[in-house]
Amino acid sequence: MKERRPKVVIVGAGFGGLFAAKALAGTPADVVLIDQHNYHLFQPLLYQVATAGLAPSDVAWPIRSIVTRHRNISVVLGDVDGLDQKHRRVLLRDQQIDFDYLVLATGARDGYFGHEEWRRWAPGLKSVNDATALRRRLLLAFERAEVCRDANERERLLQFVIVGAGPTGVELAGAIAELAHHTLAKDFRRIDPRSAKVILVEAGPRVLPTFGEKMSRYAERSLQRLHVDVRLNSPVIGCDADGVTIGQNGVESKLPAATILWAAGVAASPVARWLDVGTDRLGRVKVGPDLSIAGNSDVFVIGDAARVIDANGVEVPGIAPAAKQQGRYVARVIDARVRHRPDSRPFRYRHAGNLATIGRRSAVVELGRLRLKGRLAWWLWGIAHIYFLIGLPSPLIVSFRWLWEYVTYGRGARLITGNVRSELPERLC
Amino acid sequence: MKERRPKVVIVGAGFGGLFAAKALAGTPADVVLIDQHNYHLFQPLLYQVATAGLAPSDVAWPIRSIVTRHRNISVVLGDVDGLDQKHRRVLLRDQQIDFDYLVLATGARDGYFGHEEWRRWAPGLKSVNDATALRRRLLLAFERAEVCRDANERERLLQFVIVGAGPTGVELAGAIAELAHHTLAKDFRRIDPRSAKVILVEAGPRVLPTFGEKMSRYAERSLQRLHVDVRLNSPVIGCDADGVTIGQNGVESKLPAATILWAAGVAASPVARWLDVGTDRLGRVKVGPDLSIAGNSDVFVIGDAARVIDANGVEVPGIAPAAKQQGRYVARVIDARVRHRPDSRPFRYRHAGNLATIGRRSAVVELGRLRLKGRLAWWLWGIAHIYFLIGLPSPLIVSFRWLWEYVTYGRGARLITGNVRSELPERLC
Repeated sequence: MKERRPKVVIVGAGFGGLFAAKALAGTPADVVLIDQHNYHLFQPLLYQVATAGLAPSDVAWPIRSIVTRHRNISVVLGDVDGLDQKHRRVLLRDQQIDFDYLVLATGARDGYFGHEEWRRWAPGLKSVNDATALRRRLLLAFERAEVCRDANERERLLQFVIVGAGPTGVELAGAIAELAHHTLAKDFRRIDPRSAKVILVEAGPRVLPTFGEKMSRYAERSLQRLHVDVRLNSPVIGCDADGVTIGQNGVESKLPAATILWAAGVAASPVARWLDVGTDRLGRVKVGPDLSIAGNSDVFVIGDAARVIDANGVEVPGIAPAAKQQGRYVARVIDARVRHRPDSRPFRYRHAGNLATIGRRSAVVELGRLRLKGRLAWWLWGIAHIYFLIGLPSPLIVSFRWLWEYVTYGRGARLITGNVRSELPERLC
Repeated sequence: MKERRPKVVIVGAGFGGLFAAKALAGTPADVVLIDQHNYHLFQPLLYQVATAGLAPSDVAWPIRSIVTRHRNISVVLGDVDGLDQKHRRVLLRDQQIDFDYLVLATGARDGYFGHEEWRRWAPGLKSVNDATALRRRLLLAFERAEVCRDANERERLLQFVIVGAGPTGVELAGAIAELAHHTLAKDFRRIDPRSAKVILVEAGPRVLPTFGEKMSRYAERSLQRLHVDVRLNSPVIGCDADGVTIGQNGVESKLPAATILWAAGVAASPVARWLDVGTDRLGRVKVGPDLSIAGNSDVFVIGDAARVIDANGVEVPGIAPAAKQQGRYVARVIDARVRHRPDSRPFRYRHAGNLATIGRRSAVVELGRLRLKGRLAWWLWGIAHIYFLIGLPSPLIVSFRWLWEYVTYGRGARLITGNVRSELPERLC
């Protein structure tokens, strides 16, 4: 009689879950990869979808096609509602899936520091739907301004506030500024899109806080050259239908804005609730040196859903390369256990570097000891992203499209899809 | 004192409206182009979006960017609710726009021969939203079949019925068959997508009825080679949650299907109601030899919204080249009137030809006396479409993507976007 093959269930096909699955391709185990979408999302480029530079299908690939060659991996499209740890089952809405090993890689959602009511006015950027909704909002703001006859309201429509000056906030601010100053510049007859104001609001003392100080200063200057108004030391204290309220040096001030984008914080997905364990401040589950949870060494949490202190005592950051490394690591641990081989090396994070672009003029790059900024850094950033895309379908297409967009300043993808009526002004003007 | 410039309002930026606007670029008049979307849609390729071959942004371009150079054309994003003919005004939801000349080019909707209740079960393919919804439906049918344990229901999920064997129906059927037999063939573990059945149902005696009989027979054989089940002389007599009922030689039979696509008929948009005039059987407004309506020579109806008998006594078909010719014609008429020059030549339709593809193996082409079928015709079809796209942005991208897709049989764009939950099975299985 053949021995039953162990079953590995992975929840979430982001960078962590997908790389765990791929690394288990040769393992004598059946792998089930569950996700709520049928695609893997290349999140670092999602801001380009939101700003009409790329189509959703340029930054997302069907999970099935990525793993199609690996016959021990099957894919399930479904929403996980919870776990039955005792019976080792994952509970989906309309089925249950048994596991011997479980990898939870469910990522993070936008975090509003306890102000969930802000979400409505200041949506974030985590999913394809977020991105297409943001795009719709951005483009409709210009359309609404074009037909608006009230000067104050027109100004409010053309004011865009981005909250949070990490890489996503910086990239969004740069891209929106370029949209207004180049792509849309000549498309309207009554308004001048170049009069739009893009305001980047940051609670801390500098942009790109995870970069070196010199890089932060450079990025700030680059943003200002793109006409982005950068407000540092300005924590948000309110978001509503009219705009954003910030505190600056103890003084409250209101920024009227029809479009507010949230890039300020994350909160972990509901994994802790499923596991019924405590979390850190950001809702992440604390895991041990092998990324398994306390009390059940067959259950692993990786990526943005986990709080990981690696073997060097470093707190692992919530970025794509870290999630990939964790995915590959748990695959190795599970492979060793399945094959009854010892493997007790703890997870050790290797920080590859930091990258961020500021429009199409410049970027900042920190790779090991290498520090680069400006146009050369931009090309390095582009090449790095194209490189990361290779192995997934269509990299050629994305690079051609980039080249094309770069040369023409065009935005082929700037469609307002979905229900336009439902997005029309709350306040008619 | 400067003379007031006449104002031309065009409603609808499909082929008719857009070509009318562009042809008025040099006319001493202010042109306002109104559409409910911010993009012009290249409808002949919409079936490729529905079958995950192209992204929406490959077949749609922002109207503003198309006319941006023509400073006498302005674009309004809005929904027209009606007309005030007496005061020469177009009524939008939140504004009114005066006109001296009015061109109504609002196109057609799907027609259900008086059975509006079928629309829910058998959606058509007219808009980007239709196409992305169809794509979601198609791909989710395979996903649902993969997890379905009931054999009958699984079969129903993998049965796709296309109603109507005109060019759209034929192209859809071929593309869906290829999706099942090539693109998805190896992506699933429990089901074999190649077992999916694609059924093309047609009330008349042959496919592609506007083509010559020889071409129809060739197209039918090509479809069968792609494993499409072609049912001729089979009028649909019912559509519901379970599938389609057809009558064949007086005998009713039921085709169980979870996915039904409607490509059988069109009905004109509500222009006749706005104008308060009678229509033909398809809801189209009858127009005179200069495409203006009876009783008001300053109001024109063109494209699918109009019933046009041209100067040769030919009834003009509802296809893109005909709409373009009508758009250019009314622009010339209006230009002549604005410049106080006589121009009384009636509209004369020039039929360029018929094109349709059947998967990526073959196509049928009728251009003047030229009759082509097979692989050569496919390339001609491809080149013709790329040629038509030129002048609009991004043709290069689309051609690269095509080439890529052609070589790899991949479907980069096969994303299920939008709300997956809302599209999950009415009947759980």
